[in-house]
Amino acid sequence: MSSHEELILARVALTWLAEPGTRSVHALVDELGPVGALDLLLDGGAPQQALRESVAARSRGGDARMIAAEALRRAARLGVRVVIPGDDEWPETVEHLRTLRLSDARRRVDVETAPPLCFWVRGSWPLAEALDRSVAVVGSRAATAYGTHVATDLGYGLADRDWTVVSGGAFGIDAAAHRGALNAGGRTVAVLACGVDRAYPMGNAALFDRIADIGLLVSEWPPGAEPLRPRFLIRNRVIAAGTRGTVLVEAAARSGATQTTRRAIALGRPAMVVPGPVTSAMSVGAHEMLREYLEARLVTGLAHVLEEVGRIGELAPVPRGPERPTDLLDDDARSIVEAMPRRGRVDVDALAVRAGLAVRTVLRKLPLLEELALVVRREDGYALVTPSRPSTPAQPGPSTPTPPRPVAPVSRPIGGDAPPSA
Amino acid sequence: MSSHEELILARVALTWLAEPGTRSVHALVDELGPVGALDLLLDGGAPQQALRESVAARSRGGDARMIAAEALRRAARLGVRVVIPGDDEWPETVEHLRTLRLSDARRRVDVETAPPLCFWVRGSWPLAEALDRSVAVVGSRAATAYGTHVATDLGYGLADRDWTVVSGGAFGIDAAAHRGALNAGGRTVAVLACGVDRAYPMGNAALFDRIADIGLLVSEWPPGAEPLRPRFLIRNRVIAAGTRGTVLVEAAARSGATQTTRRAIALGRPAMVVPGPVTSAMSVGAHEMLREYLEARLVTGLAHVLEEVGRIGELAPVPRGPERPTDLLDDDARSIVEAMPRRGRVDVDALAVRAGLAVRTVLRKLPLLEELALVVRREDGYALVTPSRPSTPAQPGPSTPTPPRPVAPVSRPIGGDAPPSA
Repeated sequence: MSSHEELILARVALTWLAEPGTRSVHALVDELGPVGALDLLLDGGAPQQALRESVAARSRGGDARMIAAEALRRAARLGVRVVIPGDDEWPETVEHLRTLRLSDARRRVDVETAPPLCFWVRGSWPLAEALDRSVAVVGSRAATAYGTHVATDLGYGLADRDWTVVSGGAFGIDAAAHRGALNAGGRTVAVLACGVDRAYPMGNAALFDRIADIGLLVSEWPPGAEPLRPRFLIRNRVIAAGTRGTVLVEAAARSGATQTTRRAIALGRPAMVVPGPVTSAMSVGAHEMLREYLEARLVTGLAHVLEEVGRIGELAPVPRGPERPTDLLDDDARSIVEAMPRRGRVDVDALAVRAGLAVRTVLRKLPLLEELALVVRREDGYALVTPSRPSTPAQPGPSTPTPPRPVAPVSRPIGGDAPPSA
Repeated sequence: MSSHEELILARVALTWLAEPGTRSVHALVDELGPVGALDLLLDGGAPQQALRESVAARSRGGDARMIAAEALRRAARLGVRVVIPGDDEWPETVEHLRTLRLSDARRRVDVETAPPLCFWVRGSWPLAEALDRSVAVVGSRAATAYGTHVATDLGYGLADRDWTVVSGGAFGIDAAAHRGALNAGGRTVAVLACGVDRAYPMGNAALFDRIADIGLLVSEWPPGAEPLRPRFLIRNRVIAAGTRGTVLVEAAARSGATQTTRRAIALGRPAMVVPGPVTSAMSVGAHEMLREYLEARLVTGLAHVLEEVGRIGELAPVPRGPERPTDLLDDDARSIVEAMPRRGRVDVDALAVRAGLAVRTVLRKLPLLEELALVVRREDGYALVTPSRPSTPAQPGPSTPTPPRPVAPVSRPIGGDAPPSA
């Protein structure tokens, strides 16, 4: 039985020999344990030729165990800890990556999506607890003012409801989501594609310090590791798997930001997409996600997101127009109101003709309409109660009903304004 | 056998006795023909009590046949013709309304959705021909600048591709769609909820005249008929059924504009919705349609609309980012490019370590990369070809790849900038 330190060292060394997510390495760890797997690989015994070659190539750059040991010493000096499976704070949700299979996966980054072997963590919050009730908010670096506004709002709202906001620490949408959460006094987690001691991008250095103070910086790579291009995509599987759902705010065509959403879909996690103006290049990728993936759910704000990731009882209200007294009316009563002349009076018989209803139906409904203060009885008939004007002027024409009170135009069933001329 | 004039007169009279779409009336016409149905109704013989009462109420306002005859005389003076089933220009597509059943239909306007009994038409284009290759573009009257822009664009693009743009002649989205079509030199059809001689809304009077000149104004109600509120919703079923598909551009919560889309869905016609900023109240109804109805298809422009309504061969191109030379590379070749130092040279052995590949794999791939002008061979190794700068500065960091040429950061597999210190 290996000690905890040996397990950690082996997992760190394995992550150096092959990039995180490599399925063949993960399978060897499952079979032999991390120490056995490392021994096998260093002895040149990997079953796959590609893996054997990769290990041999890396090993020409140094001794895996020594490099891992040095990385661990460096981490200890920086106050960075390593978390591995079996630890209390290991987030079990990332183990779902075992079953992740992306459709149409041809690129290495879409195939090699095994669970992480370890996490490097900066910040005092236990990792599993931080991710337990978490939502990812991701999107483009080149965000527009619109996207930044939406991401900040979402980050704020989620943190305000005690959800952890997880993102990638990049410029644009990522930074806006982290900042929104921090502004709400909430905690947020940045999952990085480089060492947790590196401020990448440099412009977010102050943001990373704030996140580390009250939230977490997390990475699969050791302190000092550089943000190589493929690592951002490798990292995205952790954001998708470690959270209850992923919200994509803005993405250009072919944006890497859609990759996290695709991984969330493949994992069966809620995959949410915020639409935007069709005139904005930064929403093209978001709209394509909504067109291509039935599982991608259009969300317009916090309420919709909570409905997807929340427990029962957090259903978003369906937006409604203003309530109107006529909402309560049945068809007959509504027809009577609509047949009332806009000005002047009408007697019951004429009203019945206008409304296309029997006189006794009209007589039966009028008391209710009086009670609702929609019509008023005069000596010579009934009149519409003039609605008090709403603050915004009511638009004429009914195709989109906007006035808070019904306004029935003067009507004659046929022939219009002019009386039939012979 | 009744004459064509008798058939027209009976259908016009029936439309006066009960609003268009009334299913019981349509069923009687199917059974007895329009003349027989009219006779039965006027004799008080309607099988349904509600219909008997409605006919009796209307009849107290005048003689149905006389009123119909007068409406026809008036129409003839105005150059308005009546089109009925069996006529060459009757659009057969509206007969699909026989099978329309709206889910959750409680209101009269959602139940009484039978086909029209007749159309009043102003304009010289044959109605069926006008609607044969047509798309409805509908939306809110209180449109934003964004919605107006999108609707005008769509109207223009559809007309430019020889599609008829159908809408309701209202302010906002409707008018923008009509205008877009006219601007393209195309023809457009306005389906009105009042007489085709009435300019409602008045502000669109000049637009209606242009439409009537080269397109069509169409209504189920005779000249002079007023735009009563329920008629807009009654009319919407014709817009949905008479076209190949319906595009909703902007709709507030609970907007009447969504009704047409619901009818298109119930008819199995393509129901398309343009998203917008989630911060815009005028897109709330559009987003709700996309959330509630799986059949509602998100479209962002002409190409998507044509893909829905067009014949095979009009598929929209999937938007892509800029093509890059590295798109052609396999994983190994891509890894080599990504492992190249941004500045300076690297020898093959070091490159193999950085890329995690066997030396012979690197040697096999390098000639291709040279041929693609991605790397260049120097005396002392290989160097990255400096990409010519794009007009917009490339953003650092790879989560959304934007530069047209790959830029590989200087990398060391582990340990970062500083060499491992002992």
